[in-house]
Amino acid sequence: MENSAKGSELSKYSTLGKEIPQVNHRAKVMGRAQYAGDLKLPGMLHGAILRSPYAHARIVRIDVSAARALPGVKAVLTGEDAPATPWGGGPIKERYVLAKGVVRFAGEEVAAVAALTEDIARDALDLIQVEYEELPALLTPEQALSEDAPTVHPERKNNIAHEIEFHRGDVEAGFASADLVFEATYSTSRQYPGYLEPMVSVASLESDDRLHVWTSTQTVFLARSRIAKALELPISSVRVIQQTTGGGFGGKIVEDDNQLVAGLLALHTRRPVRLLNNRLEDFLSCCTSVPEQITLKLGMTREGLVVAKDVHIVADCGAYSGLAGEVMHVSAMRSDNMQRNMNVRCHADLVYTNTPPHGAFRGFGGSQMLFALNSHIDAMARELGLDPAVIHERNAMEQGETTVHGWKIRSTGFKQCLVHATEAIDWANKRAAPRGTGVRRRGVGLAAAMHVCGNRTMGDWDGSTVMLALNDDGGITARSGECDMGQGAMTMITQIIANEFKVPLSAVRLLPPDTDSAPFALGTFASRVTMSAGNAAIRASHAARDKLFALAATLLQVAPGDLEMADGGGVQLRGSDKTLSLAELARAHVWRHGGEILQVSGTWDPDTEEPDEQLYGNCAPTHSFAAQAIEVEVDTETGQVTVLDSFLSDDLGRALNLTAVHGQANGGNVQAIGWALYEDLRVEDGRIVNGNFADYTMPTAESVPMLRGDFVESMDPVGPYGAKASSETAILMAAPAIANAVYDAVGVRIRDLPITPEKVLAGLQAKKEQQGAVNA
Amino acid sequence: MENSAKGSELSKYSTLGKEIPQVNHRAKVMGRAQYAGDLKLPGMLHGAILRSPYAHARIVRIDVSAARALPGVKAVLTGEDAPATPWGGGPIKERYVLAKGVVRFAGEEVAAVAALTEDIARDALDLIQVEYEELPALLTPEQALSEDAPTVHPERKNNIAHEIEFHRGDVEAGFASADLVFEATYSTSRQYPGYLEPMVSVASLESDDRLHVWTSTQTVFLARSRIAKALELPISSVRVIQQTTGGGFGGKIVEDDNQLVAGLLALHTRRPVRLLNNRLEDFLSCCTSVPEQITLKLGMTREGLVVAKDVHIVADCGAYSGLAGEVMHVSAMRSDNMQRNMNVRCHADLVYTNTPPHGAFRGFGGSQMLFALNSHIDAMARELGLDPAVIHERNAMEQGETTVHGWKIRSTGFKQCLVHATEAIDWANKRAAPRGTGVRRRGVGLAAAMHVCGNRTMGDWDGSTVMLALNDDGGITARSGECDMGQGAMTMITQIIANEFKVPLSAVRLLPPDTDSAPFALGTFASRVTMSAGNAAIRASHAARDKLFALAATLLQVAPGDLEMADGGGVQLRGSDKTLSLAELARAHVWRHGGEILQVSGTWDPDTEEPDEQLYGNCAPTHSFAAQAIEVEVDTETGQVTVLDSFLSDDLGRALNLTAVHGQANGGNVQAIGWALYEDLRVEDGRIVNGNFADYTMPTAESVPMLRGDFVESMDPVGPYGAKASSETAILMAAPAIANAVYDAVGVRIRDLPITPEKVLAGLQAKKEQQGAVNA
Repeated sequence: MENSAKGSELSKYSTLGKEIPQVNHRAKVMGRAQYAGDLKLPGMLHGAILRSPYAHARIVRIDVSAARALPGVKAVLTGEDAPATPWGGGPIKERYVLAKGVVRFAGEEVAAVAALTEDIARDALDLIQVEYEELPALLTPEQALSEDAPTVHPERKNNIAHEIEFHRGDVEAGFASADLVFEATYSTSRQYPGYLEPMVSVASLESDDRLHVWTSTQTVFLARSRIAKALELPISSVRVIQQTTGGGFGGKIVEDDNQLVAGLLALHTRRPVRLLNNRLEDFLSCCTSVPEQITLKLGMTREGLVVAKDVHIVADCGAYSGLAGEVMHVSAMRSDNMQRNMNVRCHADLVYTNTPPHGAFRGFGGSQMLFALNSHIDAMARELGLDPAVIHERNAMEQGETTVHGWKIRSTGFKQCLVHATEAIDWANKRAAPRGTGVRRRGVGLAAAMHVCGNRTMGDWDGSTVMLALNDDGGITARSGECDMGQGAMTMITQIIANEFKVPLSAVRLLPPDTDSAPFALGTFASRVTMSAGNAAIRASHAARDKLFALAATLLQVAPGDLEMADGGGVQLRGSDKTLSLAELARAHVWRHGGEILQVSGTWDPDTEEPDEQLYGNCAPTHSFAAQAIEVEVDTETGQVTVLDSFLSDDLGRALNLTAVHGQANGGNVQAIGWALYEDLRVEDGRIVNGNFADYTMPTAESVPMLRGDFVESMDPVGPYGAKASSETAILMAAPAIANAVYDAVGVRIRDLPITPEKVLAGLQAKKEQQGAVNA
Repeated sequence: MENSAKGSELSKYSTLGKEIPQVNHRAKVMGRAQYAGDLKLPGMLHGAILRSPYAHARIVRIDVSAARALPGVKAVLTGEDAPATPWGGGPIKERYVLAKGVVRFAGEEVAAVAALTEDIARDALDLIQVEYEELPALLTPEQALSEDAPTVHPERKNNIAHEIEFHRGDVEAGFASADLVFEATYSTSRQYPGYLEPMVSVASLESDDRLHVWTSTQTVFLARSRIAKALELPISSVRVIQQTTGGGFGGKIVEDDNQLVAGLLALHTRRPVRLLNNRLEDFLSCCTSVPEQITLKLGMTREGLVVAKDVHIVADCGAYSGLAGEVMHVSAMRSDNMQRNMNVRCHADLVYTNTPPHGAFRGFGGSQMLFALNSHIDAMARELGLDPAVIHERNAMEQGETTVHGWKIRSTGFKQCLVHATEAIDWANKRAAPRGTGVRRRGVGLAAAMHVCGNRTMGDWDGSTVMLALNDDGGITARSGECDMGQGAMTMITQIIANEFKVPLSAVRLLPPDTDSAPFALGTFASRVTMSAGNAAIRASHAARDKLFALAATLLQVAPGDLEMADGGGVQLRGSDKTLSLAELARAHVWRHGGEILQVSGTWDPDTEEPDEQLYGNCAPTHSFAAQAIEVEVDTETGQVTVLDSFLSDDLGRALNLTAVHGQANGGNVQAIGWALYEDLRVEDGRIVNGNFADYTMPTAESVPMLRGDFVESMDPVGPYGAKASSETAILMAAPAIANAVYDAVGVRIRDLPITPEKVLAGLQAKKEQQGAVNA
């Protein structure tokens, strides 16, 4: 494929495809990794934020005099001190660094303090007197959409933050031709990313008169431009450095206020300010996943072919929009591309409410819609007397085909994934086995998914650049602006460069992203980094190789075409033992008349398209596919659902680091199990009521079985060495697979996440009553 | 000239040739500039060094137990803990990070401590018990060269660290053809650089398992390789970051032990260690200028043409050689290239003594020889009844000529400098005026000089690389590895880029050198930075311009040749108001299919030659020339010499920043006045006896007249916009000009620096006795 960077064959030093620890594992294990919260700068202050206790209120008066008078307090800032320019994590800019006059959700930032210690800063918060006038709060999309509803934002009369509307093919004709039409409504809950490291930034106006921000982030360059705009600074006057980041899961892209408040405090105090969310604050301020109500209507032939799809989505934006609109796009469209059906219609509304904002989350809207779709296929399969695996298989897009939205399928292991998952869990036999009448009943469920590997929607670019420089000792210094949040991007890029140079991993040093020295990069989201940065790393390595060959050819007086990279580093005359080491070549490249340091840059940008106004266009270079089968046991007395077995078959193109991709698959899976069964950030009267790890229950080891799975290596023609993406695909299936397994076990269909014992019991009760009614 | 980078015409935003403050002036004035000593890292320890009190001794025993037991002490290291690999600032590696068994000068590093505070570290030094066995010490080159002398280094039997020998033309025939042959011996003293900021480093084994060193340095990359080799680490495992540097003057190239001891302590303690010399320690450990004894024999025709030159140099190396050998090369050869004389002979010996090492110092050996040569020309002019200005003028190399050592003179304003200096000081009249018989008598003196602008002697490269990246807001981020020690290199490079882009200085941000992110560079010495980095900055700007034009041509649908840089930033269709801003172009370069960040690299390497084994070859791209006239008043009762007037005419090619080059000319001049009259680091019994600013007297404002001068802009064909170099040329002339003026005033010839009142009085006394003898 022309757009492929064509990675080299694996050398004997190659770690590609092996199980290797991450390149920074030692630093993490030894406790020497520097998280932003570990930084101590001379004269550094500590920040804290006062948040609104009300879902909607007018700020009548703020008295900060007592707080300012507290010894050790260096600044107390309110909305009056915040820039007049509104900011936003997405296209709409409507939020202030500190609220100006009105608060729109409980948790919104009202005032900020910088003090000598964190304790003093928090004490000062208690001394700030705020007089609020409570305003009517819209706490659900239904309330917000009601005809006489007040507005969350006065300039948004209908409380709609974003609207999606499309119709391709002829949906009505499709339904008319269907043998079975089924409609149901699903709803999903708020999930908190639950990363180990809460959001943290250290901001400082350094000696170069620029604002330097050391922070936990998925994207240094988008952080830089957001901070600059929010604080009314030129972009060039802001420097963002990624510190070791303890997880992101979408929550550390561009929707936090932490970086902005830290920056504001630093600008005002002219001292470094460290602002570390404690866990409660992180629950209050982190964008959680977008709760959606999805009404799905599907038409199928009796063979199980989908012939029409109509979708209506009402998504809860929360008070400010961020990336929630983009998330809703994914819900609305992505799963359409799994199937050959060409009749699709959708209407989706993102609705403002006076609740904490929602936004990017691993899976990015895919999970919500795939919960509905996979549940729907299971239900319709039962109606049609088909195996849902067969329905998935019969509708599946093939390599080389173009989907209803213009997406080009360049590789797919989808069908193998279905086979692997169902076979591994003994699908046919377990579905056929009698369910019995015991207290505990078992069932199996299946779900399938697709995900993108990059997404050309952030303006007309989805590329990445990797730069390499050779040091005098032959060591390679590499730079990329893509962020590692723990998922292993640094290791992946290092592995690729090491493979291309045929050197051990230790010979390559990839520097952490810093907007001053890294090449521009969008950052880590949309499962784009392996694809884009991986290919860029190959291109950069090849650019270096070309320079090395040209130089070595001169030194050895041979033709460049007769040279090859030598195992262990260096350039070798093919079929001879004439070798020049990388150190010799690095020095020779500089130490000659006209010489220069051997440094190169490689950029790769996929040959994708920005979707047009009708949202049509091949926005991703390629796609990951997966299928997951789950077996559960349902306790009919308690309603408790226990996951007994899970097999997740993941078409990630090619596994570049087995340790990392197993970790991604398992981590995504567990996070999905949490969403399916336990996690639900509850908002009552507009207030988060379980914002702590005692009440917000994430899955622990005992609630997860030994996770099983495999990788289908579809060897993508565009991906680096055939790799596509790991990580996000794995979060898309556990919820519907569990819901389907619960139905399989006890005949109760849960369409409202999470699948709590109460809902299961209520379902069993309703079923009993229904049966009773039938029997009566 | 083909090798020229051909800078563009000056735009209306250009600061070139104007008086502008340095780009980092605000940070310095506001106290926000971060010197290495200002750094505070989490867990940082403070280091201190125990030094030998003896000039030469065997270390019999070291007991560190009491020091180690002191609460707060984290490490006490001795020679046993130091790497087995010797290090050296120059080609000879013979020194250990901490002395192993033997100390060879008073001040040598014997042990090092790291402790929680600086006070504890210094207290611990007092608790280290060292038993020495004193060895015979060689305190002068004469002692070291005597036949039965012991050796400073056992493997150097004759105590000679380096030897230079050359003979070109026919020196004997030249002398035979001369009308006047004159020989005399000159000697020069040790000068301490006297920078405001003593040497300081913070070293830390960071989370990436590499040693990071924040330090005060003239060269991050040479520091990196030196630290790596001395501490037995791969070069790629060391990162050196230049902090704001408070002066270097040659003393912060590669000869300090501070970085190495800081690194050793950090490796042992695994904690950051700050090692700051106090002033006494800095006097003890800094390489001071090389004291030389120069015997010069010159043959002249009666017209003043030099026809033969024979030089014998004995230079005092001190105990370890560092860059002193290179310094001696400059003394031996450079001034030969000022004159057309083709008969030159030299023998030079660098002699080890048990005294503190000598090395690089602003002027780098030029000052020593030019003191002799200018004094000699003055004396011979008097003998021949000629004006020394005329002798300089008659012997001067012209543009296009090649010197005795193969140097190509590409531009010279030498003769104008002579005219400007002599006219400004009213040379002819003042020389002709009667000297009178008063107590205070006045006289005028002249000296002339040349200097290089780069020097291809550090391996076969003398180039520099500048990298540029355009930010989304059109701001330019630039990187260079060349260090600013206060002289203004950052400002110069920024000015050039701003001029090429036609933007204000504030649109360009040059990052301070960091071996991780800066392109490889040799660093700041040999007056090379304006030439090499200036041309590289032009090349990088032009590479960016080419990319901008190509992109703008596509966007505007015109030919690239019809485009020009727009005033204020951007690209403009010539003769129209169609303009694309840099921000628009920066974004458009990324945001398109196949796009990449607009980043470029420009390298410039002069078309010079490495000198061959006979030391022949055009090692510098071009040369600066200068002349200085000084008027002094000599108090015949006290011997006090007062400089009344000074006019320094400097051919620096072109003045790029008037503020900076005035500062360099005046600073160099004052440092030379200090060397001529006051500064003399005295070593008695091998020990420095005046290592503090009370006893080591640098010139203060009251000892310097209003300094006058001008710039001759010879518009060098290779230099950026015609610029050559400032800084070092200005230090080369004050000493001989003062010596000549003293002779002019009172007829006393001082050939032994500094020119102290005692020497003048002794000269007057001797003259009186001589006249008495004649009269008797």
